[in-house]
This record gives sequence, C-alpha cells and structure tokens, in this order.
Amino acid sequence: MAVRVGIMGATGYTGFELYKLLRKHPAVQVVWLTTESYGGQRLSDVFPCPWDEPLIALADAAVDAVDVVFLCLPHGASMDAVAAVRRAGVRAVDLSADFRLHDPAVYQRWYGAAHKQPALLAEAVYGLPELHRAEIAGAGLVANPGCYPTSVILGLWPLAEAGWLRGAVIVDSKSGVSGAGRKPKLSTSFVEANENLSPYSIGYSHRHIAEMEQELGQAVERRGDAAQSGGPGQAAGFSIVFSPHLLPVSRGILSTIYVALPPGVDEAAVRAAYVRRYAGEPFVHLLPAGQVATLQHAVGSNRCAVGLTVVDGVAGGATLIVTSAIDNLIKGASGQAVQNMNVMFGLAETMGLE
Amino acid sequence: MAVRVGIMGATGYTGFELYKLLRKHPAVQVVWLTTESYGGQRLSDVFPCPWDEPLIALADAAVDAVDVVFLCLPHGASMDAVAAVRRAGVRAVDLSADFRLHDPAVYQRWYGAAHKQPALLAEAVYGLPELHRAEIAGAGLVANPGCYPTSVILGLWPLAEAGWLRGAVIVDSKSGVSGAGRKPKLSTSFVEANENLSPYSIGYSHRHIAEMEQELGQAVERRGDAAQSGGPGQAAGFSIVFSPHLLPVSRGILSTIYVALPPGVDEAAVRAAYVRRYAGEPFVHLLPAGQVATLQHAVGSNRCAVGLTVVDGVAGGATLIVTSAIDNLIKGASGQAVQNMNVMFGLAETMGLE
Amino acid sequence: MAVRVGIMGATGYTGFELYKLLRKHPAVQVVWLTTESYGGQRLSDVFPCPWDEPLIALADAAVDAVDVVFLCLPHGASMDAVAAVRRAGVRAVDLSADFRLHDPAVYQRWYGAAHKQPALLAEAVYGLPELHRAEIAGAGLVANPGCYPTSVILGLWPLAEAGWLRGAVIVDSKSGVSGAGRKPKLSTSFVEANENLSPYSIGYSHRHIAEMEQELGQAVERRGDAAQSGGPGQAAGFSIVFSPHLLPVSRGILSTIYVALPPGVDEAAVRAAYVRRYAGEPFVHLLPAGQVATLQHAVGSNRCAVGLTVVDGVAGGATLIVTSAIDNLIKGASGQAVQNMNVMFGLAETMGLE
Amino acid sequence: MAVRVGIMGATGYTGFELYKLLRKHPAVQVVWLTTESYGGQRLSDVFPCPWDEPLIALADAAVDAVDVVFLCLPHGASMDAVAAVRRAGVRAVDLSADFRLHDPAVYQRWYGAAHKQPALLAEAVYGLPELHRAEIAGAGLVANPGCYPTSVILGLWPLAEAGWLRGAVIVDSKSGVSGAGRKPKLSTSFVEANENLSPYSIGYSHRHIAEMEQELGQAVERRGDAAQSGGPGQAAGFSIVFSPHLLPVSRGILSTIYVALPPGVDEAAVRAAYVRRYAGEPFVHLLPAGQVATLQHAVGSNRCAVGLTVVDGVAGGATLIVTSAIDNLIKGASGQAVQNMNVMFGLAETMGLE
Repeated sequence: MAVRVGIMGATGYTGFELYKLLRKHPAVQVVWLTTESYGGQRLSDVFPCPWDEPLIALADAAVDAVDVVFLCLPHGASMDAVAAVRRAGVRAVDLSADFRLHDPAVYQRWYGAAHKQPALLAEAVYGLPELHRAEIAGAGLVANPGCYPTSVILGLWPLAEAGWLRGAVIVDSKSGVSGAGRKPKLSTSFVEANENLSPYSIGYSHRHIAEMEQELGQAVERRGDAAQSGGPGQAAGFSIVFSPHLLPVSRGILSTIYVALPPGVDEAAVRAAYVRRYAGEPFVHLLPAGQVATLQHAVGSNRCAVGLTVVDGVAGGATLIVTSAIDNLIKGASGQAVQNMNVMFGLAETMGLE
Repeated sequence: MAVRVGIMGATGYTGFELYKLLRKHPAVQVVWLTTESYGGQRLSDVFPCPWDEPLIALADAAVDAVDVVFLCLPHGASMDAVAAVRRAGVRAVDLSADFRLHDPAVYQRWYGAAHKQPALLAEAVYGLPELHRAEIAGAGLVANPGCYPTSVILGLWPLAEAGWLRGAVIVDSKSGVSGAGRKPKLSTSFVEANENLSPYSIGYSHRHIAEMEQELGQAVERRGDAAQSGGPGQAAGFSIVFSPHLLPVSRGILSTIYVALPPGVDEAAVRAAYVRRYAGEPFVHLLPAGQVATLQHAVGSNRCAVGLTVVDGVAGGATLIVTSAIDNLIKGASGQAVQNMNVMFGLAETMGLE
Repeated sequence: MAVRVGIMGATGYTGFELYKLLRKHPAVQVVWLTTESYGGQRLSDVFPCPWDEPLIALADAAVDAVDVVFLCLPHGASMDAVAAVRRAGVRAVDLSADFRLHDPAVYQRWYGAAHKQPALLAEAVYGLPELHRAEIAGAGLVANPGCYPTSVILGLWPLAEAGWLRGAVIVDSKSGVSGAGRKPKLSTSFVEANENLSPYSIGYSHRHIAEMEQELGQAVERRGDAAQSGGPGQAAGFSIVFSPHLLPVSRGILSTIYVALPPGVDEAAVRAAYVRRYAGEPFVHLLPAGQVATLQHAVGSNRCAVGLTVVDGVAGGATLIVTSAIDNLIKGASGQAVQNMNVMFGLAETMGLE
Repeated sequence: MAVRVGIMGATGYTGFELYKLLRKHPAVQVVWLTTESYGGQRLSDVFPCPWDEPLIALADAAVDAVDVVFLCLPHGASMDAVAAVRRAGVRAVDLSADFRLHDPAVYQRWYGAAHKQPALLAEAVYGLPELHRAEIAGAGLVANPGCYPTSVILGLWPLAEAGWLRGAVIVDSKSGVSGAGRKPKLSTSFVEANENLSPYSIGYSHRHIAEMEQELGQAVERRGDAAQSGGPGQAAGFSIVFSPHLLPVSRGILSTIYVALPPGVDEAAVRAAYVRRYAGEPFVHLLPAGQVATLQHAVGSNRCAVGLTVVDGVAGGATLIVTSAIDNLIKGASGQAVQNMNVMFGLAETMGLE
C-alpha cells in the first residue's frame, strides 16, 4: 500500500530532486507532477533524463488522488495552494518559506506582505525532524525548513538548548548555485559565478535569519532564559549575523559559525552536549575531534556533517567554531521533505534516503 | 637603463606569475631564472607558454649580474639564499615567509625552528607598500607579505590605526587552490577540491596569523594603547581568529572579516577612516556603500577591493563586516613584489601592473 | 541469503564508488575492504564519509569468506590477485585492464609486457552485459570494461553488427578527472586541470583502443566480413582514431564519434538499427531524434545515453555523429561491475543501480 | 597623437574585454562607450571593476570625435550602425557577424534574412591579419572573425594553401561559456553548464561554417583547384563537419580537427608547410612535435596555439590531428580587433597585446 504523492512545481531544482528521490522510494507511488512553465511537455524534455513523465498544469492536479502533496512553488505562491490541499483533507509538505514562521507579524516584517493564510500558520509544524519529530508525525502541514537554516540550526541546536548562545553569533555561509533556483539570471550565469565568490545580503538582512532565530530562540525560551521583548533571537539574548556567499559549485552549503563561549564552558563540555543531543540521529554526522566539515562530507546525501573546534587563549575569550555542511537540495530541501514524509506516514525515517 | 632582475624559483606558480609580469615590465630586463626541479629544461617545457627561457640551477645564478633578486623559494630554504644575495650587495625581494616576522622568538613559535639568519631580520622591511612605502624605498631586503595577510591587513588597517580592534576579530578567508603551490598533493587534486569547500587550520593555528598580528599590532602600539605583555596582537588587546578555506577556483582570496565596533563608532566614522587612509592608493579599491567585494573585483589585477557593511541593532552591538578580495598570485604575491621593486628603484609604483 | 562480497583496492575512486553502491544493494553483504596505502585506518579516515569500515591489507583478505571478489587494483597488479581468487574457487569481477583482451599477443603489444596469467584469459568474459549477457551469467571471471571503451562500444555496436564501420572512425572523447585515479600528479592537480582542456595520448596510442577494436571487430568477424590478417579492428576494415581529452569536471565521459556512412545508409536505417538492438536494455538511453547526449544525461546513473545525428549533403558523403555519455565511475566502472554481479548471481540486472 | 576610439556595445563580454585592452594600450584614447541596457550607469556598476566610465546611449555617440569605432553589437543590429559610421567617414572594426561573408546570397542562406547593407560587403575585409594583413591596413571596414573560425582557419590554413583539404574535415570544437554572451539563459546558467559538456548545433548547421568555408575555400580557389559550383568549401572539394560543445570553463576554445591526408603527404611535409606559413607570425604559436594545444596555452593571451599529430598505419589512411587553441574573448574577438586596429593605423601589430 504505497503512499500516493503529487508534486506541485516539479520542474525546478528541488522539484526534480524530489522526483528522483521519490521514484526510487520503495513505499511511494508518484501520481502526478505539475509545472508552471512547461505544460504539455514531459520531464525528459525539461531535464536530461530518460523519464517520460507527463507534466500537468497546477489546475489539473487531482489532489484527492494522493495521500500527500509536496509543494515546490515560489514563496508567496504556495500559501493558497497549501490551503486548497488542506481543504481537500490531504496532507502537505510545503518546501516554500510560506509556513515556516509561526508569527504572522514576523512573517510580515521579513517578507514585506501580510500572510494570506494566517489561520494555517497555527497548524504548520517546522519540519526539522531532529527537533520536532513528534509533531511532524501527526501533522497535516509540514513547513520544510530553508537550506541555510537547516545547516545553521543543526549546527547550533545543542548550544541553544544549553543556553550558550549570547550576543552576536557570526554565521559565514557558503552555498552552491542551485540554491538560487533554475530561473536564469545574471548573478547565477556560469561566467559570473564561476571562478568567483560573492557575498550577498550580508549582515542582518537575509530572510532565513527569521527561521534561525525562531527555532534557536525556542530552545532558550523553554529554558526560561528569554527576556520579555524583541524578536525570538534577541529576546533570547543572541542575534544571528548572517553572511551568505555564492560559491562556484552546483550543490552544497557550508556554514562556518563562530560562537563566543560562556566562561567555564570548555571543549569537552561542548562536545558532550552535541554527542548527547545527536546520539542515534541517522542524518547528523558528528565528526570526531580534529575534523572539520567539508562540502564533500554531505553532498549527495541527506546528512548534516558537523565539526567542532574550540579556540582557546585568544583575546575575547574562547571561541567555538562550528562547521556544518549539507547538500542544499537534499537535507536542505527535498531529502528533508522525504524524511518528513517518512515520519508523517510511520515509515522508517531513512527509507529511500540511503 | 633597465633594472636587471633574477628570479630564484621560477617554476612554481608565484615564480611563473612573476616572470609573466616582469617580461612585460617596460623598465625591467629578466636576466636569469632558476629552478629546483626542472634543470636543463626551458620554461616552455614546464608551463604551456611560448617562452623558451632556459632554466638554470640555483648554484649557477650570477647574482652579481642583476640589480635585484626575487626569491620564490619554499620557506626555510629562502633564508640562506637571501643571505648570499645580500652578501653580494644585491637587493632582494623575498616572497617566502622567512623574513616577514621581525622577532626571531615569534618566528620560532610559529615555524617551530630557530631562524638561521636572525641578523638579517633587522634589515628586512615588511613589503606592504600601503603601510611601509618609505622604508621599502631604501630597503636592501623586502619581505613580501603572505597572501592571506595582504587581504586581512589591508582590510583592517584603518581600524587598527583608529584603535577600534578589540577582542576576537573573526577572519573567515577563502582561497583559490594556487595558494597551495604547484607540488601535487591529494588535497589540491582536482577531484578532491572541485565541487568542495574545505576549512583547514582553523582557529588560531595558521602561521599567517603572526604576520597579521605583527602588522596590525604595530598600529596599536604606535597609539600607545598596547599592554605590557603577550604577542603583538594580544598585547594590543585583540586576536585574529582565522579560518582559511580551500575554494574551488584557481585564483583569488576573499576574506570576510567581522569586527565588533566600539560603542559610538558608526558606519560614517568607519567609512571616513578608510577613505582618508586609502585616498590616492592606486591598488586599494574602496567600494561604495552597498557594495561588497567579490573575487572578480580583484582576480587578474594587483588591486585589493574592500567593502564595508555595518550591521546595527543586533544583540552584542554593532558589527562591521569587511569584505576584502585580492588575486593571491598578484597582489598576494608576485604583483606586490613588482610593486615593491618599483618603489625600491624609484619607478612609478604602478609600472607594469596595469 | 545475501551475496557476500569483498573489495580489493577500496581506497581509490572506483573502489569507494563500488562500496557506496554495494552497501545500499539489497542483496549484498560487504565482508571486507582492502587497501594498499591506508592499512589500519578506517574508510572514514580516507574519504569524507561516516562509514567506519576497517581497511585491511590484501594479504589479510579472507577470500573464502565471500562469494565474489571485486578487484579495483592497478593493471598489472591485478593478474596474480585474480589468479589467487580463482584458485580458491571464488568468482571475480576484475575492474583492471588485465583480462579484457583475449589474445596475449595483443595484450603484449599494447601493454609492453607478457601477460602473467595467459591461461586465465581463456575463461575471462568481457563484462559488457549489453553484448555478452549470457556468458557473464556463467562466468567465473568477468573483465569489467574500460570507461572509454564502454562509451564507444555501446555508441558503435549497432553499426558494427550492421557492417557499417569502414576506414577511420574518429572518436573524440572527453573525460572527467576522476578517470585518472586518486594518486596525486601534476596533470590532475586542480590548478592544472581547472579552466583547461587537454588532449592526451591522441591518435592511435591509447591502450583502450585495443578493447574497442576487439569488441567491435568481433561483430564484423561474425558477419564473415573480416579480412585475413591485421588486428581485430583493421582486419575488419576499420580503425579507431581515438583522441581522449582531460575535461575540467569530476565525473563523466562524452564521446563524440564520427562515422562515414556507406552509400545508401540513411538516418532512418541507422536509427532503426539502434532501436532494434537496444530495445529493452535498461541502461542504454537512446535519445530521440534531434537530441544529443550530454554529460548530465548520464552522470550519477548507470546509464549510457546515445544520440544520433546524420549530416547529409557534405563533401565526402553522409557522416553519422554519435554522441555517447556515461558516468565513468558508474557505467564506466563500478556500476557496470555491480550490473555484472547481478547477472552472475541471477539477480535482477538493475538491482541496486536505480 | 593617440588613436581615438569609441566602443559601441561595451557592456557585453567582448565589449568589456575590448575596453580593458584599449585602456592599457599606449597609443589609444577611449573616447566613449555605449550600452544597450545600462544607460545612465557607469562601467563600475555593471562589472566588478574600479573604472567609473560613463555609459551612453548609442544615439548619443559622437562618431566624428573618434578615428575608429569598434562595434560589439548583436548580429543583425550591427549592419546599420556600421553604415552610419562609414557614412561619417570613420573607420570601423565590426565584431559582429554582419560583414564577414562576402556573398549576400551566402549570408542569406546561413542567417535566414537578406543583408541590409550589401553595398558595404564589398568594402569589408575579413579581419584575420595572418591571412589578410595588407588589405586590413587600408580598410575602412574590417569584419572581425568569429571565435570558432579563428581557431579553425588558423589551424587549417597551411593545408588549404597546399591543396590538402579533401572530403569531410571533422572539426570537434569546445568553447568556454563566455562565447555565448552575457544575456542570461538556461543553457549558460551555472548549474546547467557546470560539471557538464554539451554538444550543440552539430553537423552542418552552425553559422560559423560559412566563414570557415569561405576563407579556406579561397586558398583552394587561388590554386585553381576549385570546381565550378557549390558553396566555397564544397566547390573546393571539402566540407567542414563542425561539432561545437559547451565546455564548463569561462574562456577558451579548443578545436580538435581531423584531416585525411592525401597519399604521399607525411608528417614532415605537413610540419614544413606550417613552419613556412607561420614564420614570424607573432600570435601563432606552433607547438613542437609531440606537443598538443591545450586551453591554457592560449587563455589570457592573443595567441593561437597549434599542435600537429599525424596518425599512421590506420585503416583509411594517415590522419592529421590538428589541435588549435585560442582565448575566445581575445584572439577570438577583442584582442584580434585590437590587432586589426594596430594594422589599420600603422602601429606595431603587437602593441597593447602582450
């Protein structure tokens, strides 16, 4: 009895990656694929592959013929499509940013527009299984995390739980070009991106900061440490200073994260917190002491590789450097979506992902 | 009356780049090229080029036939060769790390061996013309800076002068593979480096930190701010936390640098300090507000591109993000060596470099 | 009842790729991995991966504990290891070149040394399942084809069968750098290979020509067209003029092949021959008219993508251009080895390969 | 007395490359730059560079203020702009395809539209200085050759002169992505082109064939060998079968060319013809026996590197493999345009190009 799935937006990079994962998944049947731009064509016309799947218009998708819909639509466009899926009583995994932020005011602050389906925000679960496994299992709507936030939240979560995030947390992230989507534009043209490295939206301006602060701030709130006002991060006493860079590779994100450790917290304590937190997690690869995460630890897999390095004896106090690597299209998008589906439907969490 | 030059170690990447710059330089005559590994061959046998220059052994180099020797030898090997050049009364530009640190004790701490020519350290000038132009003009021995330090020191110098460096200065640098030299090794093999990004020697372990702290610490010392003990950086109240990454490009370094600004120092003050300091510098390209440095701002040129972004309103106080880009083989090595030679011989500083 | 396998030479690119395929194969148990260079270490020390498999010396490999041995050893070194495996009565898939050529004299001509195990040549089957499926099923020793020959033989086989290969067949092949192995050398260093394209061993000198002419010549021989003397190709009236190029990608081979068509053979006849021959082949992706094979059609899969373009109305007569793409580490090496194992052990041919 | 120049279309890759060459040229003054898309901006807004040159609209360009206009406009758009320049009595170097073909009927056959300025075709000189130096010196209108044709014509010219081109000449060319221009499109997006290699327009369909056959056919015509009818190539007894491939590098073209040698023509004769023809040519780098051209022989320079390999003893007779490499933006476009200008204005041909 396979899980019947539909993919809305199958002709972008995340949609196609999702199709490739699902067609090999032993407990899944892909029922339909929609496209915005290639209606009437087949998948093999749009990507260099042998799969002659028809591509249909969104309006023609039979939502009631599937058990779950994956939405790989642009943010903003996904809201109403999710609402339609939920009205039909079908579960949804939304890969857009539309349902990741719980608070409509925070959404409006970062996205510059009012949320069109605020009622659905309440039922949406942030789909990072390592944090919210139980809620995902019962969820009707899972908001699949952003690629950068996945690498950063998994890289920092044990610190947040321990209450060790303070002040400015420096996150220097580097992403492969597929993270920018398949629509042609100058900055992602080969000659512009190749033999180059470009910071963009640096500082406190990239929208993914909101997700990072929401999730990491939760851990602090649960501890009762949070102050009374401000955004989720700042209320909790820290901010994410985030510098994404466009990296001349097709896939992968590496985040190099700098945290000033509180006095008395040493390397052993840090490592113990990560070991305890991630024991048994199939998709977190905690590297042994002395190793750092590289893109090749993660690309092609659904794993997040995490390395820990503590710098002692420097002015300003001990600094922890976390290196955190994922494949932006797998653990950062489509693989995590499949992981969420596995949890939602009671399948083995690793099924179709190894 | 051309300046007659010899190149020791012409068959590495910096040596070959230097040859390409000098052969086009209107006031230079290249007299000889030495090689460690390709004796008896011609340059066109070693690199894909049309120049049939003979390659001679180091022992056969006629030092007294030239006005200046450029040494592109491995660190450690350069010391005694420099001494021989200086004994012959010939001026030297040393591209190795051997004479960059003034204090033999600091040298020993970072390089793990006693310096073999400590007397020469006293006469060596650190060859960053933007800092030490006058001393370079009269120098017999110029120690050409390291590639990473060039990007970092130029990126931070106005702050050091202003006394605004405090605590841990986070330097997240990314370098193209040519920075690792031409000798084959696994980490710089195509398949290992391509579609990858690898942090290495992160924290407080890379030897280039010593150069950065020496030079930036000087500025603080001159201000009279320095404490009584510790290394040059820490005495001055700051440390460089340095994370180099191997980037899948052939050339270029981008350093993304995070500085916690002292209270009261705002973006206008920061920008004014850089504008004042770098006015008239032909090879520092200070970017306008809103722009960040990318590799392509610098690759193929002798310029250092510097961008300034101030992040306000975050926990921990305002953070300055400096983006600083150079071509590691030009401004980070051979171009800067030519710039130094121009200064030493009273030529226009930009000659042969545009 | 899983097939128990051992891998000799697991720490090169093909060995590691093979391990990654076999660990996910539902009917396989990997029993041991040997290494030449990393004895005593674990797989996760040698590659950026989470698998802590022990690496043992070749001498410590328990051949009788497995059902089949995959040998990923350098050519020359594989011969005696294969002989030992066969003496133990265990089946072998040899990924080296040692048993691909049936005739010891041809081997000596191309490899410059006498074959050390000529008796075993008789039992070796050339492991291209699309050509020799039945013999592979019963084989004790399968010689896994070379990467270039896989792309070229599959690209030309229907023509050979039809007797349409004549004179000089121009094969212009481009290979990713992983084809050159993991041992560091100058030509495969990042800076040398990146932003470059290098022909090498062009003309009639690369050893893979021998495999191509042996296999394609067979088809002609079976037709009774072959002449009485000369090498297998030339006896059959054609030669492979082969120009490999080193391409700045990690994986993939694209062969662009030019064949002067015999008079009267038109595009429809050519396409019909390919369609007939490859109907039902799971790993040959014959592209529709108007499409050409690109690397991305094949990389990451065990497929060979084949495109056909006929050029009419030019001086010299109609020319067929075949474009043929594979992943050199999968269909060109380890994937094909798994495909062979599937055939040898009566498993579904596609098992573990989709 | 500098040559005053204007550049029409300075914000594409060839226009910007041309500007970079001309600003360093010791005998040139750049007077104005036009743009189609970035009117009112400065060059430093459009490219990562420090040059704040204003960009003006084509309509605002003062043609009579310059001695020569370089046109880097799209083909089709260049025709009328050239006519206006010529009407003003100003010399023109046209980098588009509009004036490369002498015969308006041939133009119409390949470009699918009637030529709008057929009268000007008569005065246009094909700007390959190695072939037409004398005509260029006196020309009012120079049609700068295409990038592929430059590599192919220089690679084959001595054979054409000798009458050794017969039948199908196989040209397998690989070009860096900058050859496709700066306008974003899917095929030249980073993720599509990276880790890929794509043949396109293969066979006898790419428009650059017309240039190749026109120029190479001339040599045959001059010999009196030409037949009475057909296109310039076919009349001369040969056709160019041309397969361009999109290569994942920013710059460079490598053409690997296969020519069936006439009986009796051996390697020594071939080499002698090339040595004789290219003696003293500053920008043709004829490689010694045993070497092949690679991209790195040419990228960053105005040189065409040519390697010769003869394959004997194969079915079908001896085959010559010519490897020919250029930088598509320099010798294949803007460098050659400067070389033409040098010839036109009586300057040293290499000025500003070394």
